[in-house]
Amino acid sequence: MGNRDGNAAFERLADATATAGADAFVHVGDRFDDDLRYLTRFGGPDRDYAFVHADGRSTLCAPRLFAEQAEREFPGSVVSASESSASSAAERALEVLGDRLTSPLEDACVLALPSMPAGATRTVADSVDEVVLEPIDLGRAHKTSAERDRHAFVQRAAQRGMARAEAVLAAATPETAGDAEDAEEARLDELRWDGDLLTTERLRREVNATLAKSGVRDAENTVIGVGTTCADLHFTGEDRIGPGETVLLDLSPRGPQGYYADLTRTFVVGDVGEWERRAYDAVGEAQDAAFDALRGGAGTRAADVHEAATRTLAEYGFESGDVDVGMYHGTGHGVGVSLHEAPSLSSEDPLEAGHVVTVEPGVYDPDRGGVRLEDLIVVTADGYENLTAYPCEIEPNPTRTETISDLSN
Amino acid sequence: MGNRDGNAAFERLADATATAGADAFVHVGDRFDDDLRYLTRFGGPDRDYAFVHADGRSTLCAPRLFAEQAEREFPGSVVSASESSASSAAERALEVLGDRLTSPLEDACVLALPSMPAGATRTVADSVDEVVLEPIDLGRAHKTSAERDRHAFVQRAAQRGMARAEAVLAAATPETAGDAEDAEEARLDELRWDGDLLTTERLRREVNATLAKSGVRDAENTVIGVGTTCADLHFTGEDRIGPGETVLLDLSPRGPQGYYADLTRTFVVGDVGEWERRAYDAVGEAQDAAFDALRGGAGTRAADVHEAATRTLAEYGFESGDVDVGMYHGTGHGVGVSLHEAPSLSSEDPLEAGHVVTVEPGVYDPDRGGVRLEDLIVVTADGYENLTAYPCEIEPNPTRTETISDLSN
Repeated sequence: MGNRDGNAAFERLADATATAGADAFVHVGDRFDDDLRYLTRFGGPDRDYAFVHADGRSTLCAPRLFAEQAEREFPGSVVSASESSASSAAERALEVLGDRLTSPLEDACVLALPSMPAGATRTVADSVDEVVLEPIDLGRAHKTSAERDRHAFVQRAAQRGMARAEAVLAAATPETAGDAEDAEEARLDELRWDGDLLTTERLRREVNATLAKSGVRDAENTVIGVGTTCADLHFTGEDRIGPGETVLLDLSPRGPQGYYADLTRTFVVGDVGEWERRAYDAVGEAQDAAFDALRGGAGTRAADVHEAATRTLAEYGFESGDVDVGMYHGTGHGVGVSLHEAPSLSSEDPLEAGHVVTVEPGVYDPDRGGVRLEDLIVVTADGYENLTAYPCEIEPNPTRTETISDLSN
Repeated sequence: MGNRDGNAAFERLADATATAGADAFVHVGDRFDDDLRYLTRFGGPDRDYAFVHADGRSTLCAPRLFAEQAEREFPGSVVSASESSASSAAERALEVLGDRLTSPLEDACVLALPSMPAGATRTVADSVDEVVLEPIDLGRAHKTSAERDRHAFVQRAAQRGMARAEAVLAAATPETAGDAEDAEEARLDELRWDGDLLTTERLRREVNATLAKSGVRDAENTVIGVGTTCADLHFTGEDRIGPGETVLLDLSPRGPQGYYADLTRTFVVGDVGEWERRAYDAVGEAQDAAFDALRGGAGTRAADVHEAATRTLAEYGFESGDVDVGMYHGTGHGVGVSLHEAPSLSSEDPLEAGHVVTVEPGVYDPDRGGVRLEDLIVVTADGYENLTAYPCEIEPNPTRTETISDLSN
């Protein structure tokens, strides 16, 4: 499986190298470099390692202490590199390159990605004739069925996390703050849960523990906004949650082999106000319209999906684009070993079978709150498959955990 | 707090820029770039953003959708950048640079880190006179008291995770595998817990859920080896745990503002064999010897700590260095917003007050198992402070969770 995935990318590398008129491809990075992870399947350490593709062969230069892990994970040959500074990842790559190439190293033209560190690039450039920096389509947007399964696994875990949040919100009770003089007024802005005030941080910890129990990690991506902070798209503070406020949870955990989920739901505890109801209805309809646009599957112009969503929002009086109130982000993006990757649902290009994308319309008012609903789908030849099976209801349902109990990993 | 930390690094940047004869410093990266996180305190998104230091002013060019977050977190001025590809982070940095510099942009010499992406570096280089790539000591090794507190917070969380693992191991029972013909023999290689076979992955999920409840994330760093895989330093597989085998847990979660913990303990469930006992005693004594060497505090030659540990291991018959059996890694490394950073305990340089380092001797035999014990300490003027308060006992203690219950976050 890993092998097959790896080889598909290796073939694209070989093509890109030939097209660029280069003799080899070199990349240097660490575990946080998603292209390198995609190419090598190596979870790697937080120090630089190198990848070389030359003469039809792919080689990973792994730090010495991680060579065993590299052997397990990398579908190619592994060269163990010293961890001493005397031999950097780039220098190790040059040694491998020297072994692989039939012509002298100093005559070589090397293709590399613009994301390669400038220092490593300079080291390589100093020993070869030329380094050509060029973005390369590694085929990451096209998911294999094995990759689709990894997304499905982590999306199920995300749904378990969401169910935990929903259960906590459903069990939270409006309560008088201790220091409030007017009890009725205090009820309007405080929720208690499990003996204490409910905050976004307490909710986040419950969600993240559930993700961990499901075998995935929150990856610093458990975004929870409440009321006005919902408009701040990646808010991860510690705010009290009150009744009547929108609570927006955007969960993007990372699962085995580095594949991400992406799931957003919005709730309101207690009475739902007019703006919140209208926003929720609008976003729900906009998501339905986006799904309708996706019915054609492969070949659908990506921007048609975004435009279907924004058209529907407009019918509800919500503007889109570079606005302060309304929808000021795209309707969706590709997801893979990066949380954000190609394709964008704002693109003029047609969607293709195997694209894994989010469908996430939202509307925000910095003075009121925000609503977003997000599913993760796979584009197929004649439609799409939704990897998400989580209901959209604004009022938290206390029995949600049981109803989605089949989502176990 | 954030402001003070930020400014200290900014002063070092100003000095480095002057020393290099440069007019400004520019860096481009994303949330996975620890130097950028240290400089900006910005948790940031998974797309490139830029930092510019020129004319005594620090500016963060944040992607548009993240400008609010940047304003909250960055102790300097924030410029919101378009997310369109027409204006890359490097191009936005050039615009800021043009505003800040009194002389023409094309005459400017810009200092940059070797970790800056080659593509962004080329974009800057195309518009200025020269880009000087040079490592810069940002002062990351010297922790402020605020940073020390962040390490203490996440180390407490790591200890709660360890206590959970120890409780699970203590509750695990040797049991006959269903298909074993010889019940006595089967008892030797299986442990059951909570109704199923105990695996490293089940144990990892318990640990990670506890970390999450404590407000930190496992950061893909919950390494659990069992028996022979303990020798594979960063093993994160799914193996059955058996009685008599070393179970090595290395927990390095990441806490608020990106600071890491680092904690390793090793356990054996059931009878402890002769090799395991000797290895455990040796490593415990080696760690004590390392602590003794640290008693002098600031001014201690770092390698003295490593040599104290390896000398003790040698007394137990364990070799060190480039060996297959024994200790084949250093005794410790600095920890900060990177899990591995300066200083190394193999360095000839003296330790300085405020250094946060691991003390982690270990011995391994690829055919038997491995033992490592690791604490996280802060070097002080006249000694060291151990941020770790977790006992070292090879047999898992069922009451550990209660005895360390004061470690709450």
